[in-house]
Amino acid sequence: MDMILQEDDGILVQPTNFSAVEDNCIYRCGFPQPSNFPFLQSLNLNSIICLSLEPYPEENLEFLKFNKVKLFQFGMDGTKEPSTMSRSAITEALKVLTDIRNHPVLIHCKRGKHRTGLVVGCLRKWQSWCLSSVMDEYKQFAGAKWRETDGRFLETFDVSCIRHCL
Amino acid sequence: MDMILQEDDGILVQPTNFSAVEDNCIYRCGFPQPSNFPFLQSLNLNSIICLSLEPYPEENLEFLKFNKVKLFQFGMDGTKEPSTMSRSAITEALKVLTDIRNHPVLIHCKRGKHRTGLVVGCLRKWQSWCLSSVMDEYKQFAGAKWRETDGRFLETFDVSCIRHCL
Repeated sequence: MDMILQEDDGILVQPTNFSAVEDNCIYRCGFPQPSNFPFLQSLNLNSIICLSLEPYPEENLEFLKFNKVKLFQFGMDGTKEPSTMSRSAITEALKVLTDIRNHPVLIHCKRGKHRTGLVVGCLRKWQSWCLSSVMDEYKQFAGAKWRETDGRFLETFDVSCIRHCL
Repeated sequence: MDMILQEDDGILVQPTNFSAVEDNCIYRCGFPQPSNFPFLQSLNLNSIICLSLEPYPEENLEFLKFNKVKLFQFGMDGTKEPSTMSRSAITEALKVLTDIRNHPVLIHCKRGKHRTGLVVGCLRKWQSWCLSSVMDEYKQFAGAKWRETDGRFLETFDVSCIRHCL
């Protein structure tokens, strides 16, 4: 568990598997717990993208309301391999993730491994990362739990259909 | 002229009318001079958007090449009131400006007052700023040179035609 000492000697506890995807504007993690709220507050978030299917917990909703953080939920089944349905959820999540009006934004699922890893991986392909770097980052967060099927999804995800338009 | 003292006692000279539009990702200024290059280097720019019509100076092009900074040029006549042509240049500039793959990005024209002020003003409308705040920011940079016609352009610029899509 990563901890950061606050100036007033309070302790800021990062959510599990927390990291910056892009400094100061895009972050990723596992499901935030109430003990993580002071840390999240320090990020001055504009939005949270949740990829879990379950209803968002009441205390998390209260935290969002109090801090005026927008919630976008694109639920995916975290136990199955990526399907056509998750492809459309991933595209919707990417729209929100890349829109600077939503920054700083935090994206999370349950453990910050598979679903979050897929969306961040697609973001990296859109950012023209080579596939081996995309997979290295995916595996860095999925650890021993990395999935062959996620790798195939990232390999075949077509970024040419992604257009950024105004 | 704003100057920042470097750690090695070198002096970083900001371009005229320099400011952050969005911290760490979008900056604005007047035309960068060679004396500003060390300062620009400290921003780790990915891209520059130039709104001037003139060919980009050779020494600036060399700076961009050496630092691997992309150049997008959308020329507009800075002496005239905004026209249909500048409306399309502004939309193209906004596309580049809001695409995180181009961040950190610097937008500039000659003096960083009118053309840059128009694009930043349209960005602010897209970000849902109220018109009076948009105008306050425009006037802050245009100073005594602010133009009634620019104000009317910003008032009527239709952000509903702006869609962010993947």
